[in-house]
Amino acid sequence: MEDTKPITAVRITSEGKKPKEELVVREVPLTIIFNGKELVTLLCTPSGLTHLAVGFLASEGLLKEKEDIKEMVLNEKGWYIQINVDESTIDLKALSSRRLITSGCAGVASFYRSTDARLAAPIDSPLRISRDQVFSLMKRFQQKSSLFRKTGGVHSCALGTTEEIQVFADDIGRHNAVDKVFGECLLKDISTIDKVLLTSGRVSSEILLKVVKRQVPIIISPAAPTDLATDLAQKLNLTVIGFVRGKRMNVYSAAERVI
Amino acid sequence: MEDTKPITAVRITSEGKKPKEELVVREVPLTIIFNGKELVTLLCTPSGLTHLAVGFLASEGLLKEKEDIKEMVLNEKGWYIQINVDESTIDLKALSSRRLITSGCAGVASFYRSTDARLAAPIDSPLRISRDQVFSLMKRFQQKSSLFRKTGGVHSCALGTTEEIQVFADDIGRHNAVDKVFGECLLKDISTIDKVLLTSGRVSSEILLKVVKRQVPIIISPAAPTDLATDLAQKLNLTVIGFVRGKRMNVYSAAERVI
Repeated sequence: MEDTKPITAVRITSEGKKPKEELVVREVPLTIIFNGKELVTLLCTPSGLTHLAVGFLASEGLLKEKEDIKEMVLNEKGWYIQINVDESTIDLKALSSRRLITSGCAGVASFYRSTDARLAAPIDSPLRISRDQVFSLMKRFQQKSSLFRKTGGVHSCALGTTEEIQVFADDIGRHNAVDKVFGECLLKDISTIDKVLLTSGRVSSEILLKVVKRQVPIIISPAAPTDLATDLAQKLNLTVIGFVRGKRMNVYSAAERVI
Repeated sequence: MEDTKPITAVRITSEGKKPKEELVVREVPLTIIFNGKELVTLLCTPSGLTHLAVGFLASEGLLKEKEDIKEMVLNEKGWYIQINVDESTIDLKALSSRRLITSGCAGVASFYRSTDARLAAPIDSPLRISRDQVFSLMKRFQQKSSLFRKTGGVHSCALGTTEEIQVFADDIGRHNAVDKVFGECLLKDISTIDKVLLTSGRVSSEILLKVVKRQVPIIISPAAPTDLATDLAQKLNLTVIGFVRGKRMNVYSAAERVI
């Protein structure tokens, strides 16, 4: 199904009103039925739905490897996907992942979900990236998002080497775009530990935790990180490069990877 | 607590590297404990947390009026808020609100959650807004977001008459900013049915459903709506004005309210 839909809006300018054909981004509710039970409904653009579901399950700690998937059926008419995995591979704790409520010292809990604390580990990677490689990747990343140019309504995510983009996804949600990229990597056996991730959106703690679980050493964004994402990145030794605009950038953590 | 935090980043330009003080937006995990049970953890900026929790519960159909709240205690050290409401006022269906999976015809379900289908009703409002009022409100709205100017990392939401902004909130999440505004309205008995809502973010179906539940007749955004939001707005007779930029705008639904 197409990711966009033409609609007729009323365009109002200083010269008056007139009808105008506009392309708007499509949004569908995809429900994941996991081992026979309804798990979640994601609101997303209708491309890469299999990648999205697999990436989401991996981010939630419910799926580790492609081989664990016994059955996967996408129903695009009713917008649901049924995924069955070998029961013995499921980390049952992940299904009831609750907030870790801290005793209340001055700081915020580094991990607010027990699943995240279990799956995230510090990054030990020799990967390095040059200033010019960052600018060049960002330029190609921004050129690639044709859906954004058409509709002005989506976020993008990409994974690549320091030289080129290999996996790319668009979605109305920042989180979905990241899950689509990681879902595709998982299904196609693309390694993530020696790559960089580009995201068009702000780097919040949720994005950061998805990335650290796949052990990607470098995140690049044209936008800003939050303080919690910055704290986590410093603790977990992940390089966050933000505000990449024109010929400038800010490095918020593990700056030694930028040469 | 402050909404921003100063950190030292490494600024890289064509002239080299140097340390630079940057303000980043704060992000905290707020857990809502509803009638003694952990309901959800929202990642948000640490201002207006009471408004956020109340607005969230109202959006989810778990709270109708200020009078239903028996007790509300915010613990900013552990980032949780305990809210107890009169059990008899809770719509128990809302607590287990599941996806409505449709039989699978060509279209997408208008309402993908049963709670939404129950709480949303078509809007019958005589409110009108002029082109110049839209431009003027948008200009003041964008001037108001000092947090965005400081950090580049948040979304804003506001509610007002066609002439002036009355309630305003910032947050790292589009949804949270809307919930903060509606929570404040609920706690301060500010009517929403004769107002307009401004949001800095894209108009997705989730934003639209929050707004329609409060019966606000007009949404104004500098960004784009999705097709599902547009469909719902047309069915529910809510005016969506998007891409308000400079002296232009697009009206996607119920255009008769723009004069």
